Amino acid sequence: MKRAAIVSIGNEILGGQTIDTNAAYLSKELLVLGLPVLSCYTVGDETDRIVRALNLAGMDADIVVATGGLGPTDDDVTRQAFAKFMGVELKIQEDLLRKVQDFFAQRNLQMPGKNRIQACIPVGAKALPNNRGTAPGIMAEADGKLFVALPGVPSEMKQMFGESVLPQLQQVASSQSVVVRKLRCYGVGESTIAEMLGELMQRGRNPLINCTVHFGVITLHIIATAENQVQAERMAKEGENLLKETFGDLIYGTAEQTLAEVVGLRLAHQQASVAIAESCTGGLLSKLLTDAPGASEYFTHGWVTYGNIAKIGELGVPEDLIERCGAVSEQVATAMAQGARSRAGADYAIGITGIAGPTGGTEQKPVGLVYICVDSKEESEVQCCRFSGDRDSIRRRAAQSALNMLRLRIKD
Amino acid sequence: MKRAAIVSIGNEILGGQTIDTNAAYLSKELLVLGLPVLSCYTVGDETDRIVRALNLAGMDADIVVATGGLGPTDDDVTRQAFAKFMGVELKIQEDLLRKVQDFFAQRNLQMPGKNRIQACIPVGAKALPNNRGTAPGIMAEADGKLFVALPGVPSEMKQMFGESVLPQLQQVASSQSVVVRKLRCYGVGESTIAEMLGELMQRGRNPLINCTVHFGVITLHIIATAENQVQAERMAKEGENLLKETFGDLIYGTAEQTLAEVVGLRLAHQQASVAIAESCTGGLLSKLLTDAPGASEYFTHGWVTYGNIAKIGELGVPEDLIERCGAVSEQVATAMAQGARSRAGADYAIGITGIAGPTGGTEQKPVGLVYICVDSKEESEVQCCRFSGDRDSIRRRAAQSALNMLRLRIKD
Repeated sequence: MKRAAIVSIGNEILGGQTIDTNAAYLSKELLVLGLPVLSCYTVGDETDRIVRALNLAGMDADIVVATGGLGPTDDDVTRQAFAKFMGVELKIQEDLLRKVQDFFAQRNLQMPGKNRIQACIPVGAKALPNNRGTAPGIMAEADGKLFVALPGVPSEMKQMFGESVLPQLQQVASSQSVVVRKLRCYGVGESTIAEMLGELMQRGRNPLINCTVHFGVITLHIIATAENQVQAERMAKEGENLLKETFGDLIYGTAEQTLAEVVGLRLAHQQASVAIAESCTGGLLSKLLTDAPGASEYFTHGWVTYGNIAKIGELGVPEDLIERCGAVSEQVATAMAQGARSRAGADYAIGITGIAGPTGGTEQKPVGLVYICVDSKEESEVQCCRFSGDRDSIRRRAAQSALNMLRLRIKD
Repeated sequence: MKRAAIVSIGNEILGGQTIDTNAAYLSKELLVLGLPVLSCYTVGDETDRIVRALNLAGMDADIVVATGGLGPTDDDVTRQAFAKFMGVELKIQEDLLRKVQDFFAQRNLQMPGKNRIQACIPVGAKALPNNRGTAPGIMAEADGKLFVALPGVPSEMKQMFGESVLPQLQQVASSQSVVVRKLRCYGVGESTIAEMLGELMQRGRNPLINCTVHFGVITLHIIATAENQVQAERMAKEGENLLKETFGDLIYGTAEQTLAEVVGLRLAHQQASVAIAESCTGGLLSKLLTDAPGASEYFTHGWVTYGNIAKIGELGVPEDLIERCGAVSEQVATAMAQGARSRAGADYAIGITGIAGPTGGTEQKPVGLVYICVDSKEESEVQCCRFSGDRDSIRRRAAQSALNMLRLRIKD
């Protein structure tokens, strides 16, 4: 089986100012290709340190992927380090220069002189196009091994990896096939999931089941390894079916689907619409719903009624209801949802009101208390939730839980 | 100046299931102690790979901090690797065994046999107490250098680092003091900033200036090194002042401040309020503004008018204006802001309309085109922006640019 290694480059990583998410992304992608990562070397923006890391990584692996240090400023020296490592010169490529110039021209900007360096590539290496920025990547062979340099900006790195590196790697990857499938759950904690999984989660099993958690969303990773792709696919599929039986409705989707996407798909499928009235989440729920392109098909109206005046004036929440029950109450969540649904003429509406903290909590209504109402013609359902964590976690959990309630309401 | 190196241990890191936040945490802590991290080696749970990484790290640095692989299960081999690296045996320590037994006894649990290994320490090394879990850390000297092993669980790692490692390191650290300050800019690209910095950014300078970028926000890092803390503080302050002179209004804040926080502070200071009407950003702008606790002081009303009906019905945008100019236009952005300001009775209002993509663009109105209006009693200012990148980047840049326009309008 062939192996990969990663070289992460950047003073901002070594200084701890930036958390290296690129390495994790690449590790996952490479693993799925059947190219497990054996090591990762993190170094600063210094030519000799980068060359040393490339040498060490080349001892470990058949494929070395480096990220970072391709920008236009003086502290970006990955290009120079690749040339030194390969024992060649850097040479300007006219077609690359034109691309960088075009990038600025399209934005009605003059290309700063510093960006010229981004059109330079080590002699004998190949430039990888960058459709999101000015820094092309580098791909080179040395000692029969493949060395790749990608930008450090995650969106540029991902796009370049997917378009220019991945197809090349599929050819070099080993004969062992690895298939990874992911299922996503929402509604219970990680330890409950682990208990339900029982011995399915034991290491050494094939498919291997891993479980990670992120703001209440639990991702089950099913990693099947086999002699060939078909067999690995079959094993992964079997694992997937077993988990679907075990977890039922707790599973909301596959792969990288978000709760908002799944809700969007169900709404679009039913040609139904949803309106949103948010207080403590402050726009986050609408934001999540509109992360998906095409959300205008099922979402037209959202309100961020952060103050009581807005709740009363924009959604028609009765003033005396707020006085009697408090703005954070089952009754006000319901009135918000009903008001939003009626004003928007929507099929469903969500109302959220709560205390995101860190201040504003009382003994009766502590920080983390959130009321969520999902309203439709048929019924108004309210959940009283109590989330822990900081302001950001509470808001995220509240928005996710609202989406999950809506998902369960509009089952396929 | 003494140097540090980090060894991150764990298959879950190399597999990309876990993002290594420990390395960033330790890098920051070590840098502030005057022990800059020169390299980080990430390896899986394999004794020989860990030993090799410890050797490599020992070549780079005077202090090597390893994390991970101290758990009780068979895949945790950091203890064994430390013993092998030191050329000694592992030996059980009775006092450690009692502590692990007590940990379980306090929870009314029987200690599983596997946990016995956690009471083993390489001969000649020192155990570091773990008050949050069962895995003690390890501290050892080899070749006059300090090697430390900490647990991989971030909360245990941080606690052990702070209590048992930090005091020791303060003694080993060089007499040099390091002070890091950060300034944040918005409004121009990274290469423009670099050109404006000119030779200030040259490596080897003291204070050293680094620059990182994240969705249009540019962070300038000022790293001053001096004989003592007072001197380093003074140099960092001078660097900060120089950058403030150079960049003026482009700098919006210090340290970890977001644009939304700075806008919030200015609004609160002026006892002014803002209303928000969003189309393409779909709630993101309101969400950013309400990330800050206490936002209700200056924000009560937000609208996500994602459909034309909502723009007309909720904000009073004239229907024929939309027909004549299109929903994505200077005129509609202005009408949205004016409608929001009037309905909310706010001092300022922001209206945003644009095409976030990936579909919906035309030749006249391409993906990435966004109109932002900041309206107040005195004037309506509209900017026509053209953002590149994917849907998420376009939305983030649009929201940030809107906040920046408002910031410049309500200068302190």
